[in-house]
Amino acid sequence: MGPALIHFADRLQSAVRRCRNPVLVGLDPRKESLPEGLWKSRGTEMTDPAAIAAAYRRFCCEVLDVVAPLVPTIKPQMAFFEQLGPAGSAALAEVVSYARQKGLIVILDGKRGDIGTTAAAYAAGLLDTEQPGGWKADATTVNPYLGDDGVEPFIEVAARSGGGAFVLVKTSNRGSGMFQDLLVGGRPLFHYVAEYVERRALETRGKCGYGLVGAVVGATYPEQLAHLRTLMPHTIFLVPGYGSQGATAKDVAAAFDANGGGAIINNARGIIFAHTLKPYSERYGPTNWQRAVEAATLDMIAQLRAETPAGKLA
Amino acid sequence: MGPALIHFADRLQSAVRRCRNPVLVGLDPRKESLPEGLWKSRGTEMTDPAAIAAAYRRFCCEVLDVVAPLVPTIKPQMAFFEQLGPAGSAALAEVVSYARQKGLIVILDGKRGDIGTTAAAYAAGLLDTEQPGGWKADATTVNPYLGDDGVEPFIEVAARSGGGAFVLVKTSNRGSGMFQDLLVGGRPLFHYVAEYVERRALETRGKCGYGLVGAVVGATYPEQLAHLRTLMPHTIFLVPGYGSQGATAKDVAAAFDANGGGAIINNARGIIFAHTLKPYSERYGPTNWQRAVEAATLDMIAQLRAETPAGKLA
Repeated sequence: MGPALIHFADRLQSAVRRCRNPVLVGLDPRKESLPEGLWKSRGTEMTDPAAIAAAYRRFCCEVLDVVAPLVPTIKPQMAFFEQLGPAGSAALAEVVSYARQKGLIVILDGKRGDIGTTAAAYAAGLLDTEQPGGWKADATTVNPYLGDDGVEPFIEVAARSGGGAFVLVKTSNRGSGMFQDLLVGGRPLFHYVAEYVERRALETRGKCGYGLVGAVVGATYPEQLAHLRTLMPHTIFLVPGYGSQGATAKDVAAAFDANGGGAIINNARGIIFAHTLKPYSERYGPTNWQRAVEAATLDMIAQLRAETPAGKLA
Repeated sequence: MGPALIHFADRLQSAVRRCRNPVLVGLDPRKESLPEGLWKSRGTEMTDPAAIAAAYRRFCCEVLDVVAPLVPTIKPQMAFFEQLGPAGSAALAEVVSYARQKGLIVILDGKRGDIGTTAAAYAAGLLDTEQPGGWKADATTVNPYLGDDGVEPFIEVAARSGGGAFVLVKTSNRGSGMFQDLLVGGRPLFHYVAEYVERRALETRGKCGYGLVGAVVGATYPEQLAHLRTLMPHTIFLVPGYGSQGATAKDVAAAFDANGGGAIINNARGIIFAHTLKPYSERYGPTNWQRAVEAATLDMIAQLRAETPAGKLA
């Protein structure tokens, strides 16, 4: 890591303290949920990938205009852009660049994972600030199924680029138990992933005490979340599942350290598509969708401050 | 699946029989290994992503010109294209389209995996023939760590598009044992993944008896490969690890059924970069790199015919 680089965990913790909240806004654009007016032919089926990608770019940038003054970090979901082919890739690159210009920490959610040299290509593309044409995100998500030599290239590139890598430990979906919860010597598989991640977090920790290796831990399993917090004291948690997936502020409280640090809480649909959800849909209507985004973000911040250690940030 | 669609496994088995070999050529372009003459500034550091992507496109298409008459199927590695950002995506789309025009079965290697609705976006983008801007591959690779609701969307889209999905069961890298080999009730984790895959293969089988759900099983663990073949009689194996990763034709013999079907054997660097490897580098030199590709492909076909049940295809 060069002398000019600030450690990822220190940057993230500092951004959370500056914004006084740990909200991670997920950018998961879906054609069917975009607000009216974002394309001309609203109501008809769009089939031009370039037009859909342009609508995603504009929508995401207009979401960023609202949330950039409020939250520390955002997470574009690569799947929804990749779905559109090359036009989607171009739109995603513009969204990442716009977010970074606004000072947001960008976690590009790709859940990539491959064997050594191929993982190194993903890592370079996603995180390396010197990679020609690369995505230049601050951090990414990584799938651990391939083992340590599939994860280490992400850690190496993150270390030299001032970036971070969040490894999937326990995901928020219903089916996550199928393999992640299988018992190995009386303990679930995801504990073994957790131990590896915590070891690498400890070995890569910054001034704040947290490592540049983080963990994805779903909010939909609050007891497991609490246990993982004790198992992984040097690991920042990226917590999905809040809002649309059913988890509440109380459910995520155990993700934080005593000072309200150590965790970022993701909400995608509950914020970016607030214009489709009560009470925001009634209060603002579809044309004031950006006010719905703002209100949903502020409500989430207030809920986290009221119900979790993140209240200490306020 | 519409009436006009032919089941993926039937298509793949039929292509293997038509070509009389099970070779899967991996397209893993790497800047440092490209043949001379593919860019003007050979010897200097290329930093323009559009120029690198153009070189990748040209190189891959010229590899396809050589291998399309010889082998049934190819596997572009998404990582090396994604590494270049949007320019890489555009190049990859052209390579996929060119391969399909040549009649090759295209397995797009992305090892994607996410929760339900996001996995559905990946699946639609990769496999759905109706997806605007989508990649329109014949099959893709899928990471199982998220559980069945992360894999099922790929199976659903594959079923309605005449495509396939190869789930990572046991990967070829050194570190694959770290989590995949952990013992659950006395058996390694990857057996549980294998049982799920086999069940879904059985449920989705075509006329040939194999399912549209396949398995990635590394050739670098020959004994595990043999055991998995018995555990997964309805599952086509995509076998990486041949050649550069050290596995030989003998090591992959157990992947096949008695008639030489049921498996495709991947080789990337050993074919596409044959001009850098003995004996081809000495025989053809760097300027005749396409002849090196052809010779390496024919040698691999001959080795598989000599040492494995694929000899019955000849």
